[in-house]
Amino acid sequence: MQRALSVSRTTGARSTFPDWYQAVVREADMAEVSPVRGSMIIKPWGYGVWERIQQTLDRRIKETGHENCYFPLFIPLSFFAKEAEHVEGFAKEMAVVTHHRLKNIDGKLQPDPDAKLEEPLIVRPTSETIIGDAFSRWIKSYRDLPVLINQWANVVRWEMRTRMFLRTSEFLWQEGHTAHATGEDAKAETLKMLEVYREFSETVLAMPVVAGEKPENERFPGADNTYSIEAMMQDGKALQAGTSHYLGTSFAHAQNIRFQNDAGELAFCHTTSWGVSTRLIGGVIMTHGDDDGLRLPPAIAPRQIVVVPMLRDKPEDAEVLAFAEALVKELQTRFALGEPIRALVDTKAQKSSDKRWNWVRRGAPVIVELGPRDVAGGQVSFMRRDALRDGDKVKSQQLPRDAFVEAAPALLAQIQQALYDEAKARLTANISTDITTFEALAEFFGPAEEDDEAGAPFKGWVRASWSRPTGEALDAVEARLKTLKLTLRNAPADQPAKFGPCIFTGRPGVEEILIGRAY
Amino acid sequence: MQRALSVSRTTGARSTFPDWYQAVVREADMAEVSPVRGSMIIKPWGYGVWERIQQTLDRRIKETGHENCYFPLFIPLSFFAKEAEHVEGFAKEMAVVTHHRLKNIDGKLQPDPDAKLEEPLIVRPTSETIIGDAFSRWIKSYRDLPVLINQWANVVRWEMRTRMFLRTSEFLWQEGHTAHATGEDAKAETLKMLEVYREFSETVLAMPVVAGEKPENERFPGADNTYSIEAMMQDGKALQAGTSHYLGTSFAHAQNIRFQNDAGELAFCHTTSWGVSTRLIGGVIMTHGDDDGLRLPPAIAPRQIVVVPMLRDKPEDAEVLAFAEALVKELQTRFALGEPIRALVDTKAQKSSDKRWNWVRRGAPVIVELGPRDVAGGQVSFMRRDALRDGDKVKSQQLPRDAFVEAAPALLAQIQQALYDEAKARLTANISTDITTFEALAEFFGPAEEDDEAGAPFKGWVRASWSRPTGEALDAVEARLKTLKLTLRNAPADQPAKFGPCIFTGRPGVEEILIGRAY
Repeated sequence: MQRALSVSRTTGARSTFPDWYQAVVREADMAEVSPVRGSMIIKPWGYGVWERIQQTLDRRIKETGHENCYFPLFIPLSFFAKEAEHVEGFAKEMAVVTHHRLKNIDGKLQPDPDAKLEEPLIVRPTSETIIGDAFSRWIKSYRDLPVLINQWANVVRWEMRTRMFLRTSEFLWQEGHTAHATGEDAKAETLKMLEVYREFSETVLAMPVVAGEKPENERFPGADNTYSIEAMMQDGKALQAGTSHYLGTSFAHAQNIRFQNDAGELAFCHTTSWGVSTRLIGGVIMTHGDDDGLRLPPAIAPRQIVVVPMLRDKPEDAEVLAFAEALVKELQTRFALGEPIRALVDTKAQKSSDKRWNWVRRGAPVIVELGPRDVAGGQVSFMRRDALRDGDKVKSQQLPRDAFVEAAPALLAQIQQALYDEAKARLTANISTDITTFEALAEFFGPAEEDDEAGAPFKGWVRASWSRPTGEALDAVEARLKTLKLTLRNAPADQPAKFGPCIFTGRPGVEEILIGRAY
Repeated sequence: MQRALSVSRTTGARSTFPDWYQAVVREADMAEVSPVRGSMIIKPWGYGVWERIQQTLDRRIKETGHENCYFPLFIPLSFFAKEAEHVEGFAKEMAVVTHHRLKNIDGKLQPDPDAKLEEPLIVRPTSETIIGDAFSRWIKSYRDLPVLINQWANVVRWEMRTRMFLRTSEFLWQEGHTAHATGEDAKAETLKMLEVYREFSETVLAMPVVAGEKPENERFPGADNTYSIEAMMQDGKALQAGTSHYLGTSFAHAQNIRFQNDAGELAFCHTTSWGVSTRLIGGVIMTHGDDDGLRLPPAIAPRQIVVVPMLRDKPEDAEVLAFAEALVKELQTRFALGEPIRALVDTKAQKSSDKRWNWVRRGAPVIVELGPRDVAGGQVSFMRRDALRDGDKVKSQQLPRDAFVEAAPALLAQIQQALYDEAKARLTANISTDITTFEALAEFFGPAEEDDEAGAPFKGWVRASWSRPTGEALDAVEARLKTLKLTLRNAPADQPAKFGPCIFTGRPGVEEILIGRAY
């Protein structure tokens, strides 16, 4: 059986899920390793997905009243000394700029000792400190509040073990930063953006998630509350796909972000921050990919319908090409999922069958193959990438040309929905709720080492009651979970009225929490 | 007379053009200095202009067949050693990352000596080297050519004397990079993108430019040919607003970018690069600003029509607000310059007159002031920012509400055209063509020091024939011009059939070249 991808996730040479993931990233032309340790090159098809994510999410960020800005890439070292917890969380692994000039010394280009910076500069790992500093200048009175801003930027967090899109030293993201007069306002903002992320992830990425609050030990350094959306990958692991933080007044204290309230008194602002990154692309791959490569939800596919004309260097080629181009032109005038259809004729000098498999691997939602017979019959032969095969065989459908054009918008909407439904069914079916003791948890998940082996069984997550321990008691829970390579993901927003006993302590439960292995 | 801006360029306390420029940047809320030497914070209104530039230019870049990618921020030091001329041009002032961790040593946070990088990393000043390295992997055969890519990114070139938008250590830009089978193809690409920049600058920024080739001494380090668009600022100085480079095969040699041609032989690719940056925003300010602040061409104004409701905490406020909101909603359904009109009701808790002056300073193209009387009469009172005053008085116009909505698209198009026409007339009128000797040139421009003084006379540029000296003879010309703080800008694309004697040597001229003071 011919497959588009060189590595299968589930059949054949029993490769592992991580192997399969790397193969999709590579063979779907999403990204490649760069000569710079820990950084990747995002190729046009991968970057096209990021552009779609940017456009659709940016619209939502603006519709909720935020404006975009741009803050410096470099942050003075001293800024990190101000918020103690924040330093502790980030100061470990950051890129440090120490010189501003190179010099040829003894025939070798090197940092010029005469151009050493008085104060080293940090390449931003996140921008709370430098944006907070600006807030302290911008905000004088309650009339200036709320301040609602966002930036799209690159950030660097030095990573020793990297994985394309999921964990790279440099990555692209958006980071929202807001300041408010009251804790209630700031908490409402935090939850509003969490909901934007949930809706965006499910509607645009077709990636169902569980939104909830992170436990204390998983909070952003310096935050009072951290919320996340968690998605289930096809190996059953959790991917934290976006976070939203209520920072209380701790950053305001560290950076003196104060305002005069309507009683004329100075008060500290309550701030928030929230972000999603190119990691989402890794989530899309691991949610929707199959043994033929990537399957892209139409909402983020750079090209939604790709037409491959079957050219054979014969006179009838011209007719096929003209038919293809007219078809694409008409498709581009139609709207699907609220936007003009993104259609393309692939005229590259390549064998048609190679082109077909390229688009299968890349996950173009609809692939049209047009031969002289289609043109003569005025029909269109196409494949749906979300349902490519019937058993082992590739499934091709035919429609009269005009009927295909008419059907295209609904077809793309159906594919979007089908990908979501498939992932949603997997998520729903794989959250176990009947595990109530730590022993049962250990047995359920089994040794972590097996997880990365070929043919490892799918485990999913456990949702269990717990007594929400804090401080050292929570550290002890974390340590026990760590022996199983498990982590607490979040406490889902929808909680029941009553709880069973705590899975860790046997004491009365106060909350249900998700437990799983994670990226 | 009330002015929106605190500093006048031409009247009152005889401030200088640079003072005026800084005042516009500050008071139009475009950007502010950051605590990081040489870096600025781009505020929402300034960033909104950049977003408009990105959207409109990105469309053009894609329409000409280019795809966007993303390459690493960091470039290994050794990459810069490969292309000798390129190093010479850039190696001087770059940010150098030497450590990847901070550590608390003796109570002070500092770079961890144990985390020193084996090879320092350079924060990209431009990406020819790292993109060329990828090209060498991507390109195997003539069938892979041309490779046409672009990236939107931040870059860093350490600057000692910075000026907001015009010269900052970190700036935002796009950089196109392409590889071709032949020199002709690569040269055609170079000129195609120069033309994209010219058309973009004139149509979207309403900023007329002269497109032409840079003389040898002003070429990009490592390029065979460098072309630029040059715009004339309101102080008569030139701003290089965009460049396009034909790099020949020098980068291909340095990075081994080769392909198998159709005869089966290995050949070096011909490459190009081209870019524009946030510097364009400085150009827009200095082209269109006036003594009341910024005037934004509608095509790049984040808000094209701003409605300021005159609210007075009285019952009729509700009616005024409802009228304003309905008006804006209807305007948003209309198209101007090919896109939905960007309209806004300013509901900030601020005095109406303060709001009005804010929008005047920021350069919103049309400012509507709506009071109870307008609402009662079903009319709209508005100001055109491009023609704000009649003598000293602010000029307000009235139209019935529906007529205003109908007229809005044409009104915005007229403003776009009027700003262009005004700048074009200034450019055309201020290129002197009757100066034929170096002595006359020196007299024409006078001492450079006077240029930055209050009330300095406007000089513009000189267009003169020259013999296009090279090497040391050109160095001598450059040195003579430098004594007058003059530079050769470019040789305009439209050249006459015959030339006068060379302005520098008296020998037969072979080309006309622009000479001026520049940013």
